[in-house]
Amino acid sequence: MEPKLCSGLFLLIVTACFILLLTSTNFSHEPSSTYCTNSSSSPLCASRNFLFNKKTRPITKNVPKPKPKNHDHVSDTPNHPLDPLTVMEINKVRSILSSHALFASPAPHSFHSIVLEEPDKNLVRQWEKGTTLPPRKASVIARVGADSHVLTVDISTSYVDLVDSPVHAPGYPIMTLEEMASATWAPFTNEDFNRTILSRGVDLTDVICFPISSGWFDNKEGNRRLIKIQCFSTQGTVNFYMRPIEGLTLLFDLDIKQILETTDTGRSIPIPGSTNTDYRFSNLPNRDKTRPLNPISIEQPRGPSFVIEDNHLVKWANWEFHLKPDPRAGLVISTVKVHDPDTEVSREVMYKGFVSELFVPYMDPSEAWYFKTYMDAGEYGFGLQAMPLEPLNDCPRNAVYMDGIFAAADGTPYVRENMICVFERYAGDIGWRHSENPVTGMPPLREVRPKVTLVVRMVSSVGNYDYIIDYEFQTDGLMRAKVGLSGILMVKGTTYKNKNQVKKDKEGNEEELYGTILSENVIGVIHDHYVTFYLDLDVDGPNNSFVKVNLKRQQTEPGESPRKSYMNVVKNTAKTEKDGQIKLSLYDPSEYHVINSGKTTRVGNPTGYKVVPRATAASLLDRDDLPQKRGAFTNNQIWVTPYNKSEQWAGGLFTYQSHGDDTLAVWSNRDRDIENKDIVVWYTLGFHHIPCQEDFPIMPTVSSSFDLKPVNFFERNPILSATPNFEHDLPVCGAGSVSA
Amino acid sequence: MEPKLCSGLFLLIVTACFILLLTSTNFSHEPSSTYCTNSSSSPLCASRNFLFNKKTRPITKNVPKPKPKNHDHVSDTPNHPLDPLTVMEINKVRSILSSHALFASPAPHSFHSIVLEEPDKNLVRQWEKGTTLPPRKASVIARVGADSHVLTVDISTSYVDLVDSPVHAPGYPIMTLEEMASATWAPFTNEDFNRTILSRGVDLTDVICFPISSGWFDNKEGNRRLIKIQCFSTQGTVNFYMRPIEGLTLLFDLDIKQILETTDTGRSIPIPGSTNTDYRFSNLPNRDKTRPLNPISIEQPRGPSFVIEDNHLVKWANWEFHLKPDPRAGLVISTVKVHDPDTEVSREVMYKGFVSELFVPYMDPSEAWYFKTYMDAGEYGFGLQAMPLEPLNDCPRNAVYMDGIFAAADGTPYVRENMICVFERYAGDIGWRHSENPVTGMPPLREVRPKVTLVVRMVSSVGNYDYIIDYEFQTDGLMRAKVGLSGILMVKGTTYKNKNQVKKDKEGNEEELYGTILSENVIGVIHDHYVTFYLDLDVDGPNNSFVKVNLKRQQTEPGESPRKSYMNVVKNTAKTEKDGQIKLSLYDPSEYHVINSGKTTRVGNPTGYKVVPRATAASLLDRDDLPQKRGAFTNNQIWVTPYNKSEQWAGGLFTYQSHGDDTLAVWSNRDRDIENKDIVVWYTLGFHHIPCQEDFPIMPTVSSSFDLKPVNFFERNPILSATPNFEHDLPVCGAGSVSA
Repeated sequence: MEPKLCSGLFLLIVTACFILLLTSTNFSHEPSSTYCTNSSSSPLCASRNFLFNKKTRPITKNVPKPKPKNHDHVSDTPNHPLDPLTVMEINKVRSILSSHALFASPAPHSFHSIVLEEPDKNLVRQWEKGTTLPPRKASVIARVGADSHVLTVDISTSYVDLVDSPVHAPGYPIMTLEEMASATWAPFTNEDFNRTILSRGVDLTDVICFPISSGWFDNKEGNRRLIKIQCFSTQGTVNFYMRPIEGLTLLFDLDIKQILETTDTGRSIPIPGSTNTDYRFSNLPNRDKTRPLNPISIEQPRGPSFVIEDNHLVKWANWEFHLKPDPRAGLVISTVKVHDPDTEVSREVMYKGFVSELFVPYMDPSEAWYFKTYMDAGEYGFGLQAMPLEPLNDCPRNAVYMDGIFAAADGTPYVRENMICVFERYAGDIGWRHSENPVTGMPPLREVRPKVTLVVRMVSSVGNYDYIIDYEFQTDGLMRAKVGLSGILMVKGTTYKNKNQVKKDKEGNEEELYGTILSENVIGVIHDHYVTFYLDLDVDGPNNSFVKVNLKRQQTEPGESPRKSYMNVVKNTAKTEKDGQIKLSLYDPSEYHVINSGKTTRVGNPTGYKVVPRATAASLLDRDDLPQKRGAFTNNQIWVTPYNKSEQWAGGLFTYQSHGDDTLAVWSNRDRDIENKDIVVWYTLGFHHIPCQEDFPIMPTVSSSFDLKPVNFFERNPILSATPNFEHDLPVCGAGSVSA
Repeated sequence: MEPKLCSGLFLLIVTACFILLLTSTNFSHEPSSTYCTNSSSSPLCASRNFLFNKKTRPITKNVPKPKPKNHDHVSDTPNHPLDPLTVMEINKVRSILSSHALFASPAPHSFHSIVLEEPDKNLVRQWEKGTTLPPRKASVIARVGADSHVLTVDISTSYVDLVDSPVHAPGYPIMTLEEMASATWAPFTNEDFNRTILSRGVDLTDVICFPISSGWFDNKEGNRRLIKIQCFSTQGTVNFYMRPIEGLTLLFDLDIKQILETTDTGRSIPIPGSTNTDYRFSNLPNRDKTRPLNPISIEQPRGPSFVIEDNHLVKWANWEFHLKPDPRAGLVISTVKVHDPDTEVSREVMYKGFVSELFVPYMDPSEAWYFKTYMDAGEYGFGLQAMPLEPLNDCPRNAVYMDGIFAAADGTPYVRENMICVFERYAGDIGWRHSENPVTGMPPLREVRPKVTLVVRMVSSVGNYDYIIDYEFQTDGLMRAKVGLSGILMVKGTTYKNKNQVKKDKEGNEEELYGTILSENVIGVIHDHYVTFYLDLDVDGPNNSFVKVNLKRQQTEPGESPRKSYMNVVKNTAKTEKDGQIKLSLYDPSEYHVINSGKTTRVGNPTGYKVVPRATAASLLDRDDLPQKRGAFTNNQIWVTPYNKSEQWAGGLFTYQSHGDDTLAVWSNRDRDIENKDIVVWYTLGFHHIPCQEDFPIMPTVSSSFDLKPVNFFERNPILSATPNFEHDLPVCGAGSVSA
């Protein structure tokens, strides 16, 4: 397909779609696909076409897989108190609200979130399969004219509770996909913009624009809901991110849908070339033909060992948890329980875990870059940006997929196909082992158990970046949250083609580039990524304490020992939130235990899980810098707060243009009691990224993780009785259908 | 098999074997198995029986594997300058030395190391396949009477060079397996010991003893080569480590083979019970029958994509390296090159990489524990303790195995079967990906490449602990070194059966236990693990520089930007060794680049690789504490030294009872020039371990890693042209032969 021809076509379709949408405020019970045909590939329509898409799910030949009976999800019913709203329920909400006074005004209105209002935690914890569900309610965030509203809709009684209406707090809801789309085409209606593009010798049909959340810089915004727009050339490549029209920034009002301002600081900067930027397999001139890899696959001829009951309840090995897609968090894992082999009881570990917020500040203070300080969940919707997974490549062959059901801006439900995958992983790793040394005189002894894990994955493509989120469950009780970064860099155009051209001052100091020259005229700008997880651990029930198990050097007394020193443990139970604000240190190390002080093991240790940090990064920004104030939830690596249903989003419910007055940091500084309470642990996983040429034109995945790990939770190694691999159990495989 | 009966039998066989060995000093050209029959399972004999063991290597039905033509390795010949000594060569060395004056004395003598004396680096780098090998030489460490000797033996000319003879520096060579065995049975010849055991009501045939390196505590040792011995009960379990005879310590002279001292501080401490300690699958009463896992396997029906040329040269995807087993380091990876897809040239990355030393201090200063400050490579031989891998469980089905050829104490070669495995791993991970957001107006775009890697693995079982060492090669140019810890804890007996029995002082402070109560009468003692890697990086050739790429907060000028701060990069090239002594900090982060300052990329960046630390730990011991002085190579996480052939072992060549005057820390403090030189990077991976009940009776694997990663080494993403998975390429599998 020719991108040039294509972009022009899009523009027309998008415009047509939008006009139709904006003039239409009627609610209907049936999901509608009036505006877009199935074949139209416009941005707005594309998001609509996820609904009732009859494309068959790819199924491998020989692997039996549980799969939903219907793909359109129209007849789905909720089976668990935490099940997401169904297509029918979203339609019902839309219908209820269509007759509500709030939406009777002629002012434009849009729905920014229609999700399940989760029942109270105790109701969920006490609910048993077979009993009736607690009342189903929807939590709705809507915008009417220039106001935001938070509503709760009781789906059976049709009662609408105006929870916060209108909202007076600063900040705005997540952009809708429709708003993002409107921002992408808005520049083309602007004459200044068109002139600028043409003056650079660029064909307008080659241009693609992308909406970039504007951050908040102390009311320079004038109480308007704004977005910045920057544009790229698609000429000769699908990888337009590598061809920025540098320095050209438009300011767009998301409410009144108008371009307010055009800044152009980059007229002298050439658009980088398209050479070597495309990454499509179908378009590669030189495929990898030197020493190609033979096919390799994780195979399970008897099928996976897990089941997904009632569409959302995952049961595997000793684990059981509820899994659901979420438009803001991406995916939510709830009511996680692990089976205790000693007592044969399933024990509570975590009530709820998800990605609460991201913070991605770029390190270039100049006009076209300073505002790039993304908070992807609260600004773009981490789940809304999770595209369908690519079977066989995003997830291995033995994966099972789950769809998301979300609501469009007009309240219409749509299906995001294959948004999550679940699979068992065997990576050749070892669960536990021991070989006895023959010098001990023991009989030959070699016992080894392979490690098999369960992975739940989604990938959110927030513009250029792709965030691969894995939750991995091990049979030994460990849960790992892993974030992989791939996708495409946000790059900056430059006049430099080579590092040796960079200007130096009299002292010989090179001009600040804010990054690395990756290719001719391309700078990869330094940036950070912070991913903040909400972890409502309930170890053997909700009432837990957070214990800092600090390792300290201990000097011996004179004459006590030939040793001068050793290391001992000093335990401190956090009394209030400030005790739970943790800055990790390699030289003042601790373990971080979440214990149930009311329950001990046979030999008297409190049962617990520990948060095990691994590689991470800490923000170096000035604490008083506005982006860091808004992203203050990254000021510590760990925070502990008392459970509060309204404190789930680390950057505040209304993150978009937030002022930093409703963040986790603000809540935590209230310093509430957290000892022997229902507590929530927050962990921030950080990455510094200094780009290098290997990141061009698309980045090899970089990943990091942290663990939640049982610590005196089980009486002993819970996989002592695991089975080793035996040759006769393993699959018998032949080569695929295409011969070598 | 009854452990009780068995132990008694062993004792007899071991004693018999030893008497034969000690009286025999004759050299023979043929490897001998005179002392032990193939069926004898005694410790000493077991190590001998690795030689000429005709057991067939396990081969899976449908996977073609390269494998050596002969298993006894008798006719192996060296093909590469770095190939380890062959059976024939070791025999030749033994023969040459048998007529050397040094070994003519009647004093007892033993060989502690007979390995290849590697040719000079330049000779190796310049050598090309098909040309003659540089002269083959053996480096020999021998002990004659009370003296150590370092010799080089030219295998073709028979010339013996007395490199250091006798050795005057403090410290001793690695214990031989035969010495370890002698220590395990020595206690039983001691009447005090036998009396003590009987007085505890323990049957002597139930007792197993283990040699524990004694550390060095300022000449308390009196210039003797000593080892401590502690004993355990095997009654009712093979997991004798969980049944310590607490407080009973013997001091043994390794040269004169005499028990010097018996200390007993634990008469009042019961031997912990055997309940729940066994971990053998064959002995488990309650196998894992709840929700068992279906078989799962990594399958490659067309076979692996790598070859091992001439037994040691591994070629896979874009990688090529020499791989060999080593009795001290475990395994050594040399002459690592990676193929550049742009230039079609194989480029040098690393000349040599291996585990140089370990440091494992336990955190209990009391009489029976203070000396436990292991340095496993230099004291026990990390390779000597690497037992045969268990196919299907230690390594996946598609693995290929490599044997080690080592020399026994009398110079006889023997074969350590299946010591290393090499396999391709597919874990369901993503090499790179991007999905385009439809709001951009781009055509639907979803490109994903699966990640396949190559793993080289060995497992060293140094007594109780099992160290899983993985070197993983990624197609994007990244090398990962990963250390997994499993095996069995070193535990301490206690009178306490429950935490609530622990004594408290008047202030309510609990008695110091130095660890966690894991089971009745069992304390898991707190300890650390440090694994120090030698990494002779040669990025595009030997002359490299080490650059600290420091990330710093930069405040903006007033009016410069709405931002107050950003983060920029300050590069500092290390001039001398002290600049290369790195203490990692989360709050003062850096990248650590090894660059070739003489070579740049197309756009002018120096070509480089970076050391990427991940989770690690730092020692908290007093720097002046003797164990920490001996283990001073762990004082920094990174060190950089100029290449010096004699500086390979971070704890010194003679680590056993070393005084800490020949460590990496001492070399580095000479502060030599390291800019634009052939440099060696040293990285220490650390773990703090506070035991928990889940570690009882055998530990689920804990692992950590670090990476060596290209940074502006390639012009662009080197796996841009990688191939995605296609269904038709993947294997067609059926269930194994045993039905469900």
